[in-house]
Amino acid sequence: MLELNFSNMMGEVIGEKGVSERQIEGIKAVVYEIDKRIKAKEKPELAFIDLLEQDTSEIKKIASDIREKNENFIILGIGGSALGPRAILEALSPFHNFDKKTRVFIYDNVDPRTLDRILSLIDLKKTAVNVITKSGSTAETMASFMILWEKLSGAVSNPSERIIATTDPSEGNLRKIANEKNLKTLSIPKGVGGRYSVLSPVGLLLAEVIGIDSGEMLKGARDIHSKCSDAEIWKNPAYLFGTLLYLMEREEKRNINVLIPYADGLKPTAEWFCQLWAESLGKSGLGLTPYPSLGTTDQHSQFQLWMEGPEDKVVVFIKVDDYGVDIEIPKVFKDVEGTSYLGGHTLSELIKAEQESTGLALSKIKRPNMTISIPKIDAYHMGQLFHFFEMATAFTGFLYGVNPFNQPGVEEGKNFTYGMMGKKGYEAKKEEVEKARGKKMCWKA
Amino acid sequence: MLELNFSNMMGEVIGEKGVSERQIEGIKAVVYEIDKRIKAKEKPELAFIDLLEQDTSEIKKIASDIREKNENFIILGIGGSALGPRAILEALSPFHNFDKKTRVFIYDNVDPRTLDRILSLIDLKKTAVNVITKSGSTAETMASFMILWEKLSGAVSNPSERIIATTDPSEGNLRKIANEKNLKTLSIPKGVGGRYSVLSPVGLLLAEVIGIDSGEMLKGARDIHSKCSDAEIWKNPAYLFGTLLYLMEREEKRNINVLIPYADGLKPTAEWFCQLWAESLGKSGLGLTPYPSLGTTDQHSQFQLWMEGPEDKVVVFIKVDDYGVDIEIPKVFKDVEGTSYLGGHTLSELIKAEQESTGLALSKIKRPNMTISIPKIDAYHMGQLFHFFEMATAFTGFLYGVNPFNQPGVEEGKNFTYGMMGKKGYEAKKEEVEKARGKKMCWKA
Repeated sequence: MLELNFSNMMGEVIGEKGVSERQIEGIKAVVYEIDKRIKAKEKPELAFIDLLEQDTSEIKKIASDIREKNENFIILGIGGSALGPRAILEALSPFHNFDKKTRVFIYDNVDPRTLDRILSLIDLKKTAVNVITKSGSTAETMASFMILWEKLSGAVSNPSERIIATTDPSEGNLRKIANEKNLKTLSIPKGVGGRYSVLSPVGLLLAEVIGIDSGEMLKGARDIHSKCSDAEIWKNPAYLFGTLLYLMEREEKRNINVLIPYADGLKPTAEWFCQLWAESLGKSGLGLTPYPSLGTTDQHSQFQLWMEGPEDKVVVFIKVDDYGVDIEIPKVFKDVEGTSYLGGHTLSELIKAEQESTGLALSKIKRPNMTISIPKIDAYHMGQLFHFFEMATAFTGFLYGVNPFNQPGVEEGKNFTYGMMGKKGYEAKKEEVEKARGKKMCWKA
Repeated sequence: MLELNFSNMMGEVIGEKGVSERQIEGIKAVVYEIDKRIKAKEKPELAFIDLLEQDTSEIKKIASDIREKNENFIILGIGGSALGPRAILEALSPFHNFDKKTRVFIYDNVDPRTLDRILSLIDLKKTAVNVITKSGSTAETMASFMILWEKLSGAVSNPSERIIATTDPSEGNLRKIANEKNLKTLSIPKGVGGRYSVLSPVGLLLAEVIGIDSGEMLKGARDIHSKCSDAEIWKNPAYLFGTLLYLMEREEKRNINVLIPYADGLKPTAEWFCQLWAESLGKSGLGLTPYPSLGTTDQHSQFQLWMEGPEDKVVVFIKVDDYGVDIEIPKVFKDVEGTSYLGGHTLSELIKAEQESTGLALSKIKRPNMTISIPKIDAYHMGQLFHFFEMATAFTGFLYGVNPFNQPGVEEGKNFTYGMMGKKGYEAKKEEVEKARGKKMCWKA
């Protein structure tokens, strides 16, 4: 089970800039209220909790078919439709494409260089495509799907057999196309939003394609859910996590939350968390900026700023207890005093020492930080991490009094794009873009 | 040549939250002074400017030898020693390891899972190792070098032939080992710090190994340097860039600078910039938090927060004029109104429309942003980008009155690690760590 060590957030360790037990006690009544609202499923989007009980047999069947018949598996999706799958892939099958049978490509942008390279590397005759968009109106995903549809149509006799559409159960453009073209489909349940969808078919199909048991992920999520649904804040790691970061922002103006896992494979998990935290809480002038980091690497990039820069951050470490493998640092170059101390230790000793040292260095100068520990990086504990963060995010949205499930701020940018791409009804937006181009203050040679 | 469009930073476009021409005029005298100090090479670390005139023949010779004799090239380094090479690799040879002769692995952490996987994928008999550390005392790099030294010793008769040490010209542990073991070496000139070293042998050897002309990179850098050394702020893109972000922080409290290139291959360039900006400016309680982002991807992750969250950010776009390749979106699914507007356009039209739309959406609600345009992603323009950002960072450090070349804040963390790893003289630090462990407030199941 994951653990949350929050000593370095507390006044007892970091003094007056820390949180006091009394402050947490003082928020208890509010937490009880929020807990009730979550349990009552006040918002339909809390349906992400129901994912933990889903039947994955259809996902397993489709995945097994994909593995059997294809050398390549392409995911088309963006935002939550790509971040979740990538987090699973990198955590549970690092360097996957080097030696695994079904290679995975996640195309989550509309960069022509990237798609051109992917198409040059794969044999479309041996390729399955998973197009993921809940609404079916995501421009990036639909554009790349239109391209892949045509390319597949030129390469194989029945392109529909190669495509799995993951979308709304009944509505939207992609559902409509899937019905017309007789595509295989998987449903993202009504209510489940993109950034809360990693434990839906969005993430689980990829998991099964790379040989990860989706049942183990759901089991991990269920086990942590039993803790994250305790109404008592001291017993609930998700509520505790959210409350501590909330208090640090409200009381101490710390508006940046760094997430720094000490494992290369968890870097995309930090990026997945950043979407969840940013989009869910960033509204009404409120919000916390989540920062994706990686240890030990970013000790040599960001740590200076955390130590001596403005007091605007809380650093959240993810510590891994057991890396599954270890490598001994041999006793070579014995006469070189500056490095000989390393010999005889192992890499996992070093990486763990660095994580602990970084937390201690911060707390010694009274800069708050906390540490989430996971026993190991496997399907079970990834399920725990995902669900823990989702519960913490939904809870924290309620604590701020914002809706943690919408993203109204992204519409205006989409409207301008629609205008420029000639979508009907957006002609005025196109004019606005052209008018803005006139006001150009530019340095050029 | 790169361009800097700063319209959306200015009061004329975004109103009273914008910068005025008068403010920039008002800072002119200070800029002249800083320009003189830079030209006088007041700090020895300004030696990074001299890199632009270096002779790369030795680098080319070593690279050609590596390419000829090896299937794998491993870089061991962390911080600037890895971020620069990775930025070059991903920008100029995306998906490199899929079909290029000399595969590249950049091991910049001490994660045992990662090294275990790399070792399982390569034949050490056909592998060259480039170990990069200026001081020779970087624990992560030296630990992984000790492991690779022993592994290579077991695999080939003369391991020294396979190793290139990139380090200080005369001092440090790695120089000492290189002399003893007769390793091939490349020097990082005295004065050039890790985060300003991408255009030294640190980045250029990797460039040549993957078939990129280092001379073109330096030529691009020299051409932008002629602009970035103009004492007149309106004519100097680096001074203008730094001044605008400085004013936005000092006057408007915008302490987060997002860098969002619209190209997958430039994501590591954003991460490279983040080290440069964070470590150089983050000290004495001052500093700007650089945020690594990627367009269009992060429109579906961070954009909501930028639009409706706290007013604490400036967004800097990198726009690519010509992606070199393009892919047409075919006119398929014509009866699906929600997506048919995309047909007939190309991916590069879409990605460029999204970048422009995002900037306009922000400026319309008076949130500042600016756009760096590069004609294309090639060696010449990558050289420009790197040097432009380095000049802007050094300048901005002077503007804040901090030393942009040191990183005193990272020492305490290192000392605790030394203590835990048993380095002589750090026994007291070990005790401190153990004492701190006692104060544990932890949520556990």
